[in-house]
Amino acid sequence: MNNYLNNCRIILVNTTEPGNIGSAARAMKTMGVTELYLVSQDSNIINEYAIARACGADDILNNIVIVSTLKEAINGCQYLLGTSARSRSLSSPVIDPRKAANIAINDYAVNNSKVGVIFGQERMGLTNEELSICHAQILIPTNKEYSSLNIASAVQLICYELNLAALDCVQESFKLDLNNKLNNKFNNKRDNVVLADAYEMELFYEHLERLMLKTNFLDPKQPKLLMRRLRRLYNRAQPCTQELNIMRGILAACERVCDQKNLNHD
Amino acid sequence: MNNYLNNCRIILVNTTEPGNIGSAARAMKTMGVTELYLVSQDSNIINEYAIARACGADDILNNIVIVSTLKEAINGCQYLLGTSARSRSLSSPVIDPRKAANIAINDYAVNNSKVGVIFGQERMGLTNEELSICHAQILIPTNKEYSSLNIASAVQLICYELNLAALDCVQESFKLDLNNKLNNKFNNKRDNVVLADAYEMELFYEHLERLMLKTNFLDPKQPKLLMRRLRRLYNRAQPCTQELNIMRGILAACERVCDQKNLNHD
Repeated sequence: MNNYLNNCRIILVNTTEPGNIGSAARAMKTMGVTELYLVSQDSNIINEYAIARACGADDILNNIVIVSTLKEAINGCQYLLGTSARSRSLSSPVIDPRKAANIAINDYAVNNSKVGVIFGQERMGLTNEELSICHAQILIPTNKEYSSLNIASAVQLICYELNLAALDCVQESFKLDLNNKLNNKFNNKRDNVVLADAYEMELFYEHLERLMLKTNFLDPKQPKLLMRRLRRLYNRAQPCTQELNIMRGILAACERVCDQKNLNHD
Repeated sequence: MNNYLNNCRIILVNTTEPGNIGSAARAMKTMGVTELYLVSQDSNIINEYAIARACGADDILNNIVIVSTLKEAINGCQYLLGTSARSRSLSSPVIDPRKAANIAINDYAVNNSKVGVIFGQERMGLTNEELSICHAQILIPTNKEYSSLNIASAVQLICYELNLAALDCVQESFKLDLNNKLNNKFNNKRDNVVLADAYEMELFYEHLERLMLKTNFLDPKQPKLLMRRLRRLYNRAQPCTQELNIMRGILAACERVCDQKNLNHD
């Protein structure tokens, strides 16, 4: 029934405690979410503590994909949500878990787009740079004086909301409610497009940055917030693959001119 | 602000693992729920494992009330909710966590009535007899093939819903209307930005088109739908003036390289 949850990927970044990874796997499985990626330098991190805490969710640990960079972990995702216990400046839009889950399921998963939900390291959470690749930031409402949510608890809450949204979605496929109508108002025009995946977007940003360096627009000694501002702009636009191809084409054409000019100078 | 949460009591019945009690305390505190009762025959159960897992929520463990019967634990409560991962026959009405939290806060806590939420032993859950004293049974929606929710995770989910219901309750007293909520959904972070005006956007498109011609990306004999596609992309993004200035800067930097190259060729 809830195949939409198969379009949701949980991405843990630099989780240090094996037990927390096991608990996160268990939390996922109780809610029907199964795809787990881990960014880690430690290939032996799934040890007996992880398995003990998974408590029967071994299948999720067996299928875990361990990669060394966040860039690899988001490969194939069309929509990225970063989780955070505090709001950051200059980041993507901030939404609560319920809204995030509704958007993830109704606007993406039902259209067969993959959603990645990213959780940062236990003590530090996600860095601003990691958050900047996300289309939106999920702020879990917590006690202002004590927001120290365990990472598996955070995974539990998000997967709970995803499951509810998926259940609602199945129930509501029989009747269009007001929210669906409102959502469709903005999305009608894009129903059949294939959104660029996050990995392709990273390649685009790298290309853009390279061109800005070659044209001296970007000073590597004073990059300021330039890339982050550009990410925010294009995250809002959510290019489809065709649009991304056009932009890559423009960048390549400009870069060819730069490279020819440099050749002439040599 | 959320004093309503002071009218909520978490009651753990015969929890066997000290670590789970500590994790439950942490889960409660992150959501602003503080009153913890434990039915246990073991008066030394709050040991170093419990404290380690509480992770700074020691105050809740320090104030825990340990009693030997459920009857003592519910003393002072006006409304009782029992949690369960499966529906039982012959029991009280079954509601989901969201509905339960709304009833608990809006019908009881706001009227200064105490609500008790009861969680059963790790492996067995609540007995039918324990459930029978509850006014309603909370059924947490889980994966039918794996409903093995950790007890601290269950506490986390219920306290999360209680906190949301309490926040909603406070907000609604100011009569925030639906439209405001919907309008703010995606615009929160953009409230104070000045969107680029349409005239500036036209100058940007002209600049972009000129660069595409100079780099031979755009063939003036076969322009196809290129400009229209790019307009659609940037219309969705709705750049602010600052973002538009950045993009104009990038275009100008690229154009300078083109013009220099052409000079070299002349």
